[in-house]
Amino acid sequence: MISVDEALERILSYVSVLEPEEKPVLDALGQVLAEEIVAPFSIPPLDNTAMDGYAVQAASTAGASPSSPVELQVVGELAAGYIFEGEVTPGTAVRIMTGAAIPQGADAVVPFEETDEAAHEAPTAARRIQERVRVLKEVRRGANVRRAGEDIREGERVLAAGAVLRPAEIGVLASIGRASVRVIRRPVVAVLSTGDELVEVGEPLPPGRIYDSNVYSLASLVQRYGGIPKVLGIARDTVEALTAKIRQGLDADMLLTSAGVSRGDYDVVKDVLAREGEIDFWTVAMKPGKPLAFGCFHTSGGRRIPHVGLPGNPVSSMVSFELFVRPAMLKMMGKRHWGRPILRAIARERIVNRGEPRRLFNRCVVTEEDGRYYVSLTGPQGSGILSSMVAANALTVIPEGVEVVEAGEEIEVMMLDWSHGEEWGTDRAIS
Amino acid sequence: MISVDEALERILSYVSVLEPEEKPVLDALGQVLAEEIVAPFSIPPLDNTAMDGYAVQAASTAGASPSSPVELQVVGELAAGYIFEGEVTPGTAVRIMTGAAIPQGADAVVPFEETDEAAHEAPTAARRIQERVRVLKEVRRGANVRRAGEDIREGERVLAAGAVLRPAEIGVLASIGRASVRVIRRPVVAVLSTGDELVEVGEPLPPGRIYDSNVYSLASLVQRYGGIPKVLGIARDTVEALTAKIRQGLDADMLLTSAGVSRGDYDVVKDVLAREGEIDFWTVAMKPGKPLAFGCFHTSGGRRIPHVGLPGNPVSSMVSFELFVRPAMLKMMGKRHWGRPILRAIARERIVNRGEPRRLFNRCVVTEEDGRYYVSLTGPQGSGILSSMVAANALTVIPEGVEVVEAGEEIEVMMLDWSHGEEWGTDRAIS
Repeated sequence: MISVDEALERILSYVSVLEPEEKPVLDALGQVLAEEIVAPFSIPPLDNTAMDGYAVQAASTAGASPSSPVELQVVGELAAGYIFEGEVTPGTAVRIMTGAAIPQGADAVVPFEETDEAAHEAPTAARRIQERVRVLKEVRRGANVRRAGEDIREGERVLAAGAVLRPAEIGVLASIGRASVRVIRRPVVAVLSTGDELVEVGEPLPPGRIYDSNVYSLASLVQRYGGIPKVLGIARDTVEALTAKIRQGLDADMLLTSAGVSRGDYDVVKDVLAREGEIDFWTVAMKPGKPLAFGCFHTSGGRRIPHVGLPGNPVSSMVSFELFVRPAMLKMMGKRHWGRPILRAIARERIVNRGEPRRLFNRCVVTEEDGRYYVSLTGPQGSGILSSMVAANALTVIPEGVEVVEAGEEIEVMMLDWSHGEEWGTDRAIS
Repeated sequence: MISVDEALERILSYVSVLEPEEKPVLDALGQVLAEEIVAPFSIPPLDNTAMDGYAVQAASTAGASPSSPVELQVVGELAAGYIFEGEVTPGTAVRIMTGAAIPQGADAVVPFEETDEAAHEAPTAARRIQERVRVLKEVRRGANVRRAGEDIREGERVLAAGAVLRPAEIGVLASIGRASVRVIRRPVVAVLSTGDELVEVGEPLPPGRIYDSNVYSLASLVQRYGGIPKVLGIARDTVEALTAKIRQGLDADMLLTSAGVSRGDYDVVKDVLAREGEIDFWTVAMKPGKPLAFGCFHTSGGRRIPHVGLPGNPVSSMVSFELFVRPAMLKMMGKRHWGRPILRAIARERIVNRGEPRRLFNRCVVTEEDGRYYVSLTGPQGSGILSSMVAANALTVIPEGVEVVEAGEEIEVMMLDWSHGEEWGTDRAIS
């Protein structure tokens, strides 16, 4: 029997970061940068105005006040995106709109509010600008001027390799003119169920059979965490059927199978897994999800594809995915953290973890009250009871050897969802 | 001037849940169920074994112990997915593998571990099963039997309309044989930037111009929260250009524009927005992001498309999106909660919120230490400084009227990312 931590360590030591790919920036959301991004120019590129108003020499406004305004001659008008061809000299001003480059000679901007331009409307073809403006307040040099390079300086490292591209990073890449970018590609994860009892969803259900839910929940988890699921479906418990299915998955970056890894499972599954690759069958000190297999398949091209053999029980396979496959996928994607948020929460009921020492991942609901977290189990915890996952937003983390937690004691919980799925955005397949 | 809460309330009161669509279950991850799901049969459908072992009548094992085992006649063997045609009678047993239906007559399962079948291997064609088995321990009626309906009972409501489809819900739908499902469709959100100063990424950058980053960050936010972005690009500040672009967006469910909503902005933008629909220009008591417009456009088909006019500054537009557009999108998608996780964190530095009363959303980094949260600002907070969003994982929420927060005081922070983006999965466009 090995510990959860040891199983994870062995799996992680085996998987590597995937190779980079060049992608349009908008298609790379959520992926990890595979290059360092250096600014090819400063942002903003030129000194520009933070306000609508008049670009002036600060010295021209000396002593200005509502009772003794300073009158300046308006020598031009400038919208954002244009360059003023002339120069601002003592006693003159250029009417200027937010974002426009500060004209030559000017060193400050007087906002409309500090002039006699009451309505401060934007110019239209129909309206002539006033020829003179009265300034009601003295301005300092640099007032309302955004300096070139204030956001990003030319030559500066804007994003490090390894950064996750969120909307802000995508925006920054656009601001320096990057249309495409090198990112670590997303893993293709093939998903396969085994078992003569399984029926494909959409087909009629004969007596004694059950619909295969594992391929669905596992493919959804692959999508959820940024991978590209390749659904192989169900393999019957024959050498030919299983071998054929596995070979269909050998163009993937990882292969998941469910069922066929327990001590009592049919030898055909274990035989084929072992013959088509190298596989180690583990007993992990956890509940649910004790049996786990890990190894690799060899392709004809000489590649080695990591293979995780998950248990067949629906809850066991999902929990094992969260603990072992998700970190492996995130590592492949170049992410550097795969820890889940762990909270400390007060048990609302007694939790029992008797029997052989194992870490107990009971399905639970974590709620907050007055700044403290509380945890309730989601009812029966059998590993076949998938509805217990539906009700849950977290898993308990009761350590090996802790046999009983009494109501009112504090335990650790691993959050699966922040606010019970309500936050969910896209989280779906990528073709 | 209106408050942030009032602006959000007005926007939310205007948008409605979109209509449902029928979708394959695996394509519906993250969407909201638009129908109630009732189980058409029980899960598991039949009583079945939780262990590999022998199905027996419990009474047959009375008094069994290692020193005085009870010998039973093995009358058959049963894998999961098959039905035993015969019957278990007193003194007989059926060798049975996990998940297989309990044969008629049997009422308990003796695990291999409690028999003399030491190796308890799965059957192969090459190996004949033993004809007799010795039971080493008495079993109770019902031992190791999973009852039909233990997970889900026929006729029971499995999922309520309004449930968000996570991997567990997808798995449950598959387990009851649902290949497709009715969900609220995702909104198409058209995104448009306005301004003569803007240059499309990929084109050369003339002096005085800047690349349009808003379309990129806003389209990415739309993707992030589960919408389908429709990128309209840049509209020049002319009636013709802007009108043409807006009309391209009228097949969307919502239209976002950025810039053109400040008091000092060019009238052409305001004129066109007002002429093509109804629009109200607001001043919201917040920083960044004071100017905001909200209204609707009318299509030739008589539909009304909500329109949010975001400010032009990159940070202002992103923060305004998070506060106003994200909740509107989630409401359209049928989600019932759009609140962000709000934490209380200790300020590591002085935060000033002087001037007219407004809610201050400074970009900040929240970290945890010994179970307490701490918050640091991400440097200069100018609304043009997009790199301050890159460094951030949260926004401060300093209330209107609170002029100074001293270092060491506790404030509220609105989390944008859990663990600074490292958790990110797919979060990308849907075609």
